[in-house]
Formats: sequence, structure tokens, C-alpha cells
Amino acid sequence: MTDNPDRTIGVAVLGMGNVGAEVVRILDESAGDLQSRVGAPVELRGVAVRDLGKPRKVAQELLTDDPAALVARDDVDIVVELMGGIDPARGLIRTALENGKSVVTANKALLAEYTGELATAAANRKVDLYFEAAVAGAIPVVRPLMQSLAGDTVERVAGIVNGTTNFILSAMDETGADYGDTLAEAGRLGYAEADPTADVEGYDAAAKAAILASIAFHTRVTAADVHREGISSVTSADLVAAKKFDCTVKLLSICERVHGTDGRQSISARVYPALIPLSHPLASVNGAFNAVVVEAENAGRLMFYGQGAGGSPTASAVLGDMVMAARNKVHGGRGPLESTYASLPIAPIDDVPTRYYISMKVADKPGVLAQVAGEFTKRSVSIAAVRQEGAGDDARLILVTHRAPDRAQSECVAALEDMDSVLKVSSVLRLEGTDD
Amino acid sequence: MTDNPDRTIGVAVLGMGNVGAEVVRILDESAGDLQSRVGAPVELRGVAVRDLGKPRKVAQELLTDDPAALVARDDVDIVVELMGGIDPARGLIRTALENGKSVVTANKALLAEYTGELATAAANRKVDLYFEAAVAGAIPVVRPLMQSLAGDTVERVAGIVNGTTNFILSAMDETGADYGDTLAEAGRLGYAEADPTADVEGYDAAAKAAILASIAFHTRVTAADVHREGISSVTSADLVAAKKFDCTVKLLSICERVHGTDGRQSISARVYPALIPLSHPLASVNGAFNAVVVEAENAGRLMFYGQGAGGSPTASAVLGDMVMAARNKVHGGRGPLESTYASLPIAPIDDVPTRYYISMKVADKPGVLAQVAGEFTKRSVSIAAVRQEGAGDDARLILVTHRAPDRAQSECVAALEDMDSVLKVSSVLRLEGTDD
Repeated sequence: MTDNPDRTIGVAVLGMGNVGAEVVRILDESAGDLQSRVGAPVELRGVAVRDLGKPRKVAQELLTDDPAALVARDDVDIVVELMGGIDPARGLIRTALENGKSVVTANKALLAEYTGELATAAANRKVDLYFEAAVAGAIPVVRPLMQSLAGDTVERVAGIVNGTTNFILSAMDETGADYGDTLAEAGRLGYAEADPTADVEGYDAAAKAAILASIAFHTRVTAADVHREGISSVTSADLVAAKKFDCTVKLLSICERVHGTDGRQSISARVYPALIPLSHPLASVNGAFNAVVVEAENAGRLMFYGQGAGGSPTASAVLGDMVMAARNKVHGGRGPLESTYASLPIAPIDDVPTRYYISMKVADKPGVLAQVAGEFTKRSVSIAAVRQEGAGDDARLILVTHRAPDRAQSECVAALEDMDSVLKVSSVLRLEGTDD
Repeated sequence: MTDNPDRTIGVAVLGMGNVGAEVVRILDESAGDLQSRVGAPVELRGVAVRDLGKPRKVAQELLTDDPAALVARDDVDIVVELMGGIDPARGLIRTALENGKSVVTANKALLAEYTGELATAAANRKVDLYFEAAVAGAIPVVRPLMQSLAGDTVERVAGIVNGTTNFILSAMDETGADYGDTLAEAGRLGYAEADPTADVEGYDAAAKAAILASIAFHTRVTAADVHREGISSVTSADLVAAKKFDCTVKLLSICERVHGTDGRQSISARVYPALIPLSHPLASVNGAFNAVVVEAENAGRLMFYGQGAGGSPTASAVLGDMVMAARNKVHGGRGPLESTYASLPIAPIDDVPTRYYISMKVADKPGVLAQVAGEFTKRSVSIAAVRQEGAGDDARLILVTHRAPDRAQSECVAALEDMDSVLKVSSVLRLEGTDD
């Protein structure tokens, strides 16, 4: 592991979709720069693809449909995994690490489940496992959290880390169109996949939340620990109502250190669509852009903003990792791996203090507001703002609560649903990004 | 340089001002966390101060007024230099590096002159020289540029990296007060030093531009290479006029890859107050906050935002570096040092394409605009927008040009100053952050 600038660093790329194709292109076009930055030549040894027959912009002899054989080659020092999914990626990465190869991956679903297993394999062989591209594409978030903030105490990470849902919510806000039409439009424009479930139901954002929470709080957090709600029930009426409270609606991935009244700490990791004030830095993050706000004890509030998806931006993050892994191969040493020493417990969503926005159709008669307010008082949830709108059959009550345990908030909603004078609870969203 | 978790990492801190005091506090309060993150205990060996008699929040026996003796101690592995200034910091850091100690510094003035010398000393002994805190305080900028973007090609870095001047310009914009009064107010509030020259004349921002340009373009850039103009000539009238063009005024540090018509590349590093469109992400960075926008070929546009100064935020960056340097001491390896392989030439400001905003008092008679426009046409500078305001003795012409070499722009201004019908060129600022 000492300096050896004479060696050549061999790279294997697994998967040649949007990101893989860009990685292969840049490896070729920037070979000179990459060599200068690494301190040794970097050579592409091969690219594993599913379909060898498909025309691709890479020399045919570099292609293989046997990723295991490619990973096993002695002249491969770094494996760049961009195939996605759990299997066979998991086994290939493990084998690579166990054989002393460093790995760069953008596979958030895999990392959100198996970082522990993979990081252990990397630690055993003293090699790198880098994954900047797994969260927020080109935006450096993993490395700043893991390294730049290594001497600080992170209190909260809140981000817009899914471009598809942010595109949909931004478009609904702008056009007034409803969810279904906007999703269809997003699909036509290439912002939503044929099966958009992973994005719109928050699975992608939850995997990223698990990765961010793990790093921020030095605790192993998996996707199953993340409370998850998607955007499919957000209506255009919610976006209109949000504006009346000087807010907009965003799908947020939130990782929070929860300070219990007994002084004990726990972690909340959660994904849901929420109202945030228009003055909040995340409110102006529109379209397919991503942004992550980090709040740390000493650093204060930091924001990272940029393109969270797409071939070239994601390839930029992959190649930054690859250069660092290659440098370590040449000069010795390695980057930090999983840090789980804090082992904080996960706070169930019920215990996490939240704020609610509730919109309901009510009977147009005197005393309804007092009755509604009574249900909140009973559960020690205080109301921050109320709007009464419409009249007759269209009488509506919209209210926003102060912070209280989520369980108390959701019990208030259940009580409202049981009230005769509340005809329908049309919408319930949380409110984030406020100080009180 | 192999794993040795049993060793203790000894740290010497040079200087105990705002930042030093916070570093010492956090080293003490977070000892357990730091040990877990480093993989070995971290111990403060001593703090060098100028005045031993001053009361400080650290055990008296740790204080010394002999920094050279502290740096020379065998049980010091990492030197944290926070004294500022060129001497004796330069010699102390060199000695530390030459003796195999890693160094963390926030000393931008020193780095803007002597990174070459210091990085060479670090490279010879295979130790770290980290300086995240030297640019934009708590905001991770150095590490993302050096590591996360290591596989990309940076085209431009533009930042608000001086809190004092940003506080003054924001306050002038908000209150309409003039420069002198606002500077005095900033001094009273602790946002400007007794001698504000380094801030208001752009020396601080220029040192940071030199550091950023060096990293972004893999070329050694020193403060002398940076074209520098301060904010002392910005008037409240400029801020009012800027608004009419949907702009505001910010002191920008700009590092740009200039693509010559012959295909050759050069670097422009420059600091000056400039108009930027209100829609630009830097326009809403107000008060003492800092932000840096990076544009890279593949990553696209990234923005980093946060607190650029202050004891705790800067200490956060210092400690992040310290943890990484300590990890390398324990686990082997080291971070990237100076990278100067590209060795691009520096473009003189005259050759750099810029846009100008020019405000002038003119004679209130027909034909003045045509005359003025003629001077621009002669020099192949095209005018993007013109406003004629006032009348009689208060007739004014405000114009904004399209992009052209800065020399041609400044020659237009000189020609205007010679025109009889132009009574006074009251203000000249550049316009940045537009695509055309």
C-alpha cells in the first residue's frame, strides 16, 4: 500500500445505462486529466452489460455479459457498480471487496439495506467503498457529511433528493393541474419512469434518507427504519392552500436527532410530502433539482444544491469517487467507511414532534370551530392558525397546528373524522422547516 | 503508516482567538465522539498564545508563548494553525510538515502565497496539509472541489466569500444608506474590523479566489494573479439602479476557465463588486452568509451555502480536517495535496470577456444617446439595455453592455469620460451571472 506511480489502475464498469455510458465516455475523453489527478494511468478493463448485441459507444472487445468474470480479473483494481438493484449487484460488490478491490457504487437501494455487510468486507481488506452518487447525484453530500463535518454534531439533514417527485410537485404548483395529469406529463417528458412507484411512493427518497441518517448520526439506519409516505395523495387544492399559509409542498427526506425529555437521544428518519415556508431555502428548489440542508451544532445551517439525477451529473460524482479510490490504491490509505459507534435507537414516528396542516369540509353552522378546537385541546395539541373558507355545502376549515408528538396529531385527525360536523377530512400534511 | 488504534493523536493549537478558543472547547467537549471517529484518542498537547496572562478557558499548564517549542514536541502529531498572518505561521507550518506532522490551517493569506512551498514539504513527508476553513468558513468547498469533483472539469467558481462586504452591501441595499455610514454601522455590530481594509478592498476575497482557482484548475494561482477591486466606491445609487435592471450588487470572487478563440485555455481569477440578476442563486445570499457556485462540465451548476465566518462555524471546518488528518495518522494514507499539473496561464483582466453597467450624468440635449452609442460601436461593444432618467441638470444615462473583452469595455468608459456631453461617469460596475 505504498506509493507506486508506475502501476496502472484497472477499472471495471458494471452496467452501461445513462450513467454507465457517461462514465465510460469521460474515462476515455479525460484519460490524461484523470492520470494526472490519480498519479497513475487509469484504464478501463471492461464493461459488463446485459445485452451484448445493443450498439454502444465503446470498443466491442471491452464488453462482456459476465460481470462475475470481469470483477474477478487480476488487473481490475476498482469496480464501478451501476447496474442497480439488489442482486446480482450485492454479490458482485462483496466479491470485489473481499478480493481487495475498491468499489464505487450509485446503488442506493442496495446501500440502504446492506451497507453494514459491504462496509465490513471493505474494512477487512482495507479498501474503499464510495457512494457519493447514491444520494443527490452530482451534489457532494456524502463526502461533506462524512469528512468535512467529522468534527461536528449533526442535528438535522433535510433534503429534496428525488427529482421525479420534485418535478411533479413543482409542476402542480405552477400549472394548478392535478396529480394524475402531472404524473402522466412527467412520464411523457422522461422525468418519471414507466412504473413510477419507487419515486412517487417515496421508496427512493427513503433509501437516501437511510443512507444520510446513517452517516450523519454514526448509526446503522436501513430503509425499513424510515417512515415513508409518498406524494400520490397530494392534490392541487393542497398546493393552493399551502400558498395561503405562505408555504409550498415538497417531498422531504428528513433525518433528525431527537432529544428526549429524559436527555436520551434517538433518530428520526422519515419521508413525506410536507408544507414548508416559502422563505425556507428548500422552497425555491424546483423541477428536477435536488438540495440538502444540513444543520450542525457548530457549522450552523449549510445547504448543498444542484442536479440530483441524470447521466452526466451522476457520472461526475462516480468519477470523483473513482479518482479518490484510485489515489488510495496508488498512495496508500483509504477513506472513512461505515461509522456506527453512536448506535442511537430509531424513534417511531408516533414519538416525533411534528406539525400538521389539516383541510376539512365542515357543516356550515355555528360552533363547529369551537368543537374542532376542543378535540385538539383534549390532546394537548395547540392550533397555530385557522382559515374558514367557503359557505354552505362548500364550507371548509383549514388549520395548522403547533409542534406536538405525531401520535397526538394523528389522533386529532382520527377524532375529526368521527365528528358529525366534519363532513370530510380532505387533506392532512405535515409542516416542516419552521422554528416553532 | 499502518493501522495503529492504540496510539494517541497529539494536537497542538497555535493561536486562541475566536476560532482557536472554539476548537479547544470542542476538542474537550467532544473527546469521546472524536476518538470514535478517528479510531484513537485525540489529546490537546498545548495551545500557543501571545499573552499568557490573559484569562482563557483552558488549563493553564496547556498554554505556552513558545509556539516553536510546542510544534517541535515529539508527542504532537497534528498542528492546527490559527494565528493568521504570514510570519511566524509560515515557518512554524513548514517545520511541522518537515518533521512529519500534519497541519490544519485556516490561514488564507498564507495559503494564497505559499501553498506551493508548504504542499511540497507535506508531500515530501507524506503528511496532510488541510485548509477547508480558509475559504467560506464552515461551508465545505475545498474538499468538494478537490475530491468530489476530481473526475470532472470545472469551468467556473463564483462566490460570495467575504462576510463583511456582503453584510455592508446587503445593508446598503436594504436601508438605502451610503457606504461610509454602513461601514461604520458594521464596525459597531462587530461585522467589520477596526481596520477594514483587507475586507472592503477585496484582499481577503482575492486570497480565497487564489486558493479556489488553484484547486479548481490544477494550476498554482497566487493572490498577485487575482485582479482585485473593493467595494468602497459602490454607492447607494448603484444599488437603486441595479434594482431597475432586476439586479443586486455583490462582491464576487470569480475563478473562470477562459477558452481562447485559438482553442487555448487560460484562467481568470478576479474580485470585484458586480451586478448579478436577482434570479441568480447568489443574489439572495445576504448578511454575513457566504455561498459558492461551482459550474463543472458534467456536474452542472452546484451551490454551497452557509456561514462563512465566526468562531464555531470555522472551528467546525477545522475539526473536520483534524479528524481526517488524525484518521490518516492512524490508518495510513493521506488526502490529496496541491495539484498543479495543468499549469494554465493567467489571463489578464483586459482579455477576459465581461459585461459593464455604466451610470453617467449627461447634458440634457438631443443626440447624446447616439453619440454615446457611437463610442461603443467603434470598439465593437454592443449595448444590451439603456435607461434615460431625470432631466435638465439631473439627466442621467444608465446602460448595460453585452459581453466583450474587458479592455474594450474600459476603453469605452475612458472615451465617455472625454465626451463633452457626458458630464460625469458616476459609476462603473461589471455585470455577472448572466448567460449571454
